[in-house]
Amino acid sequence: MRFDLDGLDARERYKLLTGTVVPRPIGWISTVDEQGRRNLAPFSYFQIASASPPVLSFSGGSRAGRPKDSVHNALATGGFVAHIADMALMEAMNATSVEAPHEIDEFAYAGLEALPADVVAAPRVALAPVAFECELLHAYEVPEGGNTVVFGRVRVAHVRDDLVQEDGRIDVRALDPLARLSGTLYAALGQIVDLPRPVWQDLPSD
Amino acid sequence: MRFDLDGLDARERYKLLTGTVVPRPIGWISTVDEQGRRNLAPFSYFQIASASPPVLSFSGGSRAGRPKDSVHNALATGGFVAHIADMALMEAMNATSVEAPHEIDEFAYAGLEALPADVVAAPRVALAPVAFECELLHAYEVPEGGNTVVFGRVRVAHVRDDLVQEDGRIDVRALDPLARLSGTLYAALGQIVDLPRPVWQDLPSD
Repeated sequence: MRFDLDGLDARERYKLLTGTVVPRPIGWISTVDEQGRRNLAPFSYFQIASASPPVLSFSGGSRAGRPKDSVHNALATGGFVAHIADMALMEAMNATSVEAPHEIDEFAYAGLEALPADVVAAPRVALAPVAFECELLHAYEVPEGGNTVVFGRVRVAHVRDDLVQEDGRIDVRALDPLARLSGTLYAALGQIVDLPRPVWQDLPSD
Repeated sequence: MRFDLDGLDARERYKLLTGTVVPRPIGWISTVDEQGRRNLAPFSYFQIASASPPVLSFSGGSRAGRPKDSVHNALATGGFVAHIADMALMEAMNATSVEAPHEIDEFAYAGLEALPADVVAAPRVALAPVAFECELLHAYEVPEGGNTVVFGRVRVAHVRDDLVQEDGRIDVRALDPLARLSGTLYAALGQIVDLPRPVWQDLPSD
């Protein structure tokens, strides 16, 4: 089936993109505003932008002409914390996706304990298995009224002790991450496959 | 465990980020260079940047001071095709991750049939369940020698007929997407959970 994206309405485009670019990791983003008020919300347009230097990005839209609180706060105060949510935090993560008034503290709303971060103003989720403290690096505003992609340089990471293996690799089964699909659907990890990368060698000449 | 990211070496940073920002969707990116030579390679720093307008991004690094072919080609020729790989295409996708000389055509190397795209010069993978034809919109070069994040505006999507449900939603189980973990590990979808988004209502006053 062929789709001309400009011929779809916004809802159809959204269903097509979020239904196929899957599974998406979730960046559970905490921020503070200029008055120090806390915000916490999940973003699935979340990704590694670069490993060296370490840079993460999340992308958020606007509502009624005003950027989402997380985007506004990250730009206004220069930082954010990006957490990874595991299956155990699923309900709490989902609670923080509520479209609440700006002044609502989603930490309190979802019953989550906060800890101060080391280098950014935003607090972090105490129970999150992974938290990346990020300083604002750059923001790219997609033209034609699109989302704003916020890039943060990771300064400090907090990782639950049992997840870090002796060789420095992360135990992904123990992490048990929650991923985003479309609509109201989320997914756990399924079968894990080990695919060694092929090594280049010239093909035989005949 | 607390990590100061600037205190890690590049390999440790890579393991930490790719082991925790999981599972990542894979953008299987086809491009052509200035001479029309084809390239195909998987990128897991791949994400939706915006749904309206529809924008996808992928991020690639450099090797020996030269941007990866896909990044170079997308910038040089103004477009790319981003495919979603399913479990059935796992081996072929992995074959295209080979670090081959620039002139090698990974379509031929992996035994994949190509079809011409409608609006970009790069061909598309005939068997891929989803293909997004993207025109180059923007590139953000992460400072300090980091990756280049390439943004493409989606013009045309090709989706296998059986994946599109009557209500326009994608059948994610039938799509059976392959996701990226760290190292040589990939994952299939696991348990799917339906989490209706909470509706805001003021908390009781006592």
